[in-house]
Amino acid sequence: MTTTDLAKRVYDHTWKLDPIVRSLLDTDFYKLLMLQMIWGLYRDQQVTFSLVNRTTSVRVAEEIDVAELRDQLDHARSLTVSKKEMIWLAGNSFYGRAHIFEPSFLSWLADYSLPDYDLAIRDGQLELSFSGSWVDVTLWEIPALAIINELRSRAALKGLGRFQLDVVYARAKAKLWSKVERLRNLPDLRISDFGTRRRHSFLWQRWCVEALKEGLGDSFSGTSNVLLAMDNDLEALGTNAHELPMVLAALARDDAALRRTPYQVLADWRKYYGGNLLIVLPDTFGTAPFLRDAPDWVADWTGFRPDSAPPIAGGEAVIAWWRARGRDPRDKLLVFSDALDVDTIEKAYHHFHGRVRMSFGWGTNLTNDFAGCAPTPNGNLKAISLVCKVTDVGGRPAVKLSDNPGKALGRPEEVARYLRVFGSAGHVAQPVLV
Amino acid sequence: MTTTDLAKRVYDHTWKLDPIVRSLLDTDFYKLLMLQMIWGLYRDQQVTFSLVNRTTSVRVAEEIDVAELRDQLDHARSLTVSKKEMIWLAGNSFYGRAHIFEPSFLSWLADYSLPDYDLAIRDGQLELSFSGSWVDVTLWEIPALAIINELRSRAALKGLGRFQLDVVYARAKAKLWSKVERLRNLPDLRISDFGTRRRHSFLWQRWCVEALKEGLGDSFSGTSNVLLAMDNDLEALGTNAHELPMVLAALARDDAALRRTPYQVLADWRKYYGGNLLIVLPDTFGTAPFLRDAPDWVADWTGFRPDSAPPIAGGEAVIAWWRARGRDPRDKLLVFSDALDVDTIEKAYHHFHGRVRMSFGWGTNLTNDFAGCAPTPNGNLKAISLVCKVTDVGGRPAVKLSDNPGKALGRPEEVARYLRVFGSAGHVAQPVLV
Repeated sequence: MTTTDLAKRVYDHTWKLDPIVRSLLDTDFYKLLMLQMIWGLYRDQQVTFSLVNRTTSVRVAEEIDVAELRDQLDHARSLTVSKKEMIWLAGNSFYGRAHIFEPSFLSWLADYSLPDYDLAIRDGQLELSFSGSWVDVTLWEIPALAIINELRSRAALKGLGRFQLDVVYARAKAKLWSKVERLRNLPDLRISDFGTRRRHSFLWQRWCVEALKEGLGDSFSGTSNVLLAMDNDLEALGTNAHELPMVLAALARDDAALRRTPYQVLADWRKYYGGNLLIVLPDTFGTAPFLRDAPDWVADWTGFRPDSAPPIAGGEAVIAWWRARGRDPRDKLLVFSDALDVDTIEKAYHHFHGRVRMSFGWGTNLTNDFAGCAPTPNGNLKAISLVCKVTDVGGRPAVKLSDNPGKALGRPEEVARYLRVFGSAGHVAQPVLV
Repeated sequence: MTTTDLAKRVYDHTWKLDPIVRSLLDTDFYKLLMLQMIWGLYRDQQVTFSLVNRTTSVRVAEEIDVAELRDQLDHARSLTVSKKEMIWLAGNSFYGRAHIFEPSFLSWLADYSLPDYDLAIRDGQLELSFSGSWVDVTLWEIPALAIINELRSRAALKGLGRFQLDVVYARAKAKLWSKVERLRNLPDLRISDFGTRRRHSFLWQRWCVEALKEGLGDSFSGTSNVLLAMDNDLEALGTNAHELPMVLAALARDDAALRRTPYQVLADWRKYYGGNLLIVLPDTFGTAPFLRDAPDWVADWTGFRPDSAPPIAGGEAVIAWWRARGRDPRDKLLVFSDALDVDTIEKAYHHFHGRVRMSFGWGTNLTNDFAGCAPTPNGNLKAISLVCKVTDVGGRPAVKLSDNPGKALGRPEEVARYLRVFGSAGHVAQPVLV
């Protein structure tokens, strides 16, 4: 007797669709933290988020079925936060703090659903954007990216036979487990999953997170994915992202105000969060200018997340700055999160060990590394550098400079203006992998 | 390619055991409500709970493997309430009320695990008992019964082939769904699952609960099983049980105090709960004596749960009593929970419809009706009347009279004393089915 669940098989095959996003909590935790601040301080600000494919050689709109993309986006729009999820958000402790979300914010969230989207195709690329109040559209970022990336994976695997598929996943599992075995050799490592947006698929991310939980034990500090944190009794992790300084910078009235925005963001953040949530993301308009102009109180924050500088150079710059400000780096935390894999993790770990506290937010190379797993080379299984960023703020263009010019975003004349205001000290061109 | 998950298969087959109870919330909700009251008022009271098999023709200790029973009980002892479960208990609303559990009670519960047990075999029966503080041992009742009942099911199915097993469950599913289709014809029916303790198995109860959720929609008002309520965003239902009056009666100093205990229990309950949780369980020492001696404020409670009288006669007696006390039965609730199946539910529904509010707590015939499902008649698949009741209270014997002498429990001379105190008015002998 072969074990086929007849009802399941027929049900599956008559499905309208196999949803990619099944919960509004299937998102990054920092989106919820930022959302509460946006809801509190900037809820009516009009913005547009747009999809940007930095891997221009990949014509995404030709890889996936655009009608299916619409079905998946529409399905995500049908979701609300469930009762059990609301209870967990209200009752769980995050970063050691209870009641991190205000009751009035949670009441608003209980009625929330994702707003409408604009989708067009141009030149083989998706033109997908979300316009409206910042508080309404910001949550689209993660599900939109997760949906497109999983549709790419599904398309890439479509022609494979059953054994071939079995072997693809067998290889991917073996590959991840070898990484786990290497990471196990690093005592007091603190590593977490940051791989929601670029994951191969939801089920694969779940496998990876549960594998790290079993394989790394206490070294696995949690996941940025709120749903997986809830389901597995793990810590939900993450702090803040570039959208905060990008929106505030676009709103600045003049160059002097623009220069102050990176610190205004931190002042806003402090109104809502403390302790280990006081992590500076310094690279939106360049880390070197950020450090040069930072008020002294920024050095009292718990740590920094260098997100586009090379880890060692970026970390050393922050350590030197802490020292110059009279702080002991051993009391401080560096959160590495840019394009990490085991090699870079090991290198940064050994380089900084004992000199500063460290944690690693492992993203794409955790949840979407299928290189060498397909039966024949399959470029469509390779993760691409797809982002969903704020591009317009009430009619004014948004800009990100980054420490890596390859990650800069914005209209060229506006990028030039920001470069005049902040300077380009410390910029290092690097290939943008993911 | 046949779909066998190799890792799963090997893992399953090298298991020490396949746990029956995997969560302390896999219990009846009313045990938690009672537990909070016991914790608040009687936490140090020493008691013994004992297993009683009222179906004496079935020699349980010969049907199951007693070593496996010990393994399962030991596994249950290893459980604590998980973080996610604690958050849900603290944050969920029950019966429309938030924060039904006090923070200090929940702190105590977070450290709780099931205490030791005594197990012996005599004359083909299990002598299983739990002695200690009431607050420690009371939670054993449901997992102990669920474990023994599922071990019986497993033993009963052991010799069957794969197709035979598939057909057993196919028949059971078809049978349950036919009941669902009949119940769907009753408008405004309110029915819930009360079948944890006598279920065929955990997975089967879960199937039944999820089937009722889909099949009955709003008519399915929830489940007494706390874990299934949490996992399925259903209402957790249940109020109180015979153990409260049984313990308090055993502690009564004289006959006059004994006569007052049924009302003392209600007065205790009122200190903790209100609204729809004010449901009287009147039959511990006979419903007729209870009604005869009840103070007037008992008629202000929301409803009654007649648990051993025949539903129609029992319900009519309560309705007549409400009328005599000047209350309108249409504002009141009758909760039927004794040996229900579709026939009795339909009969009671039609008899009382429009005259009183009703709800049905469907137990054994929901979660353990495999009559006619096995390939050959298999008595071992038939649910038996197994209970786990308080038998000793600090050295004094506990007694239950019930409206059905077949359900009476206690030492004969003590039963005789209780009958002298309360009288035997209204007793109706009925076969005890489950």
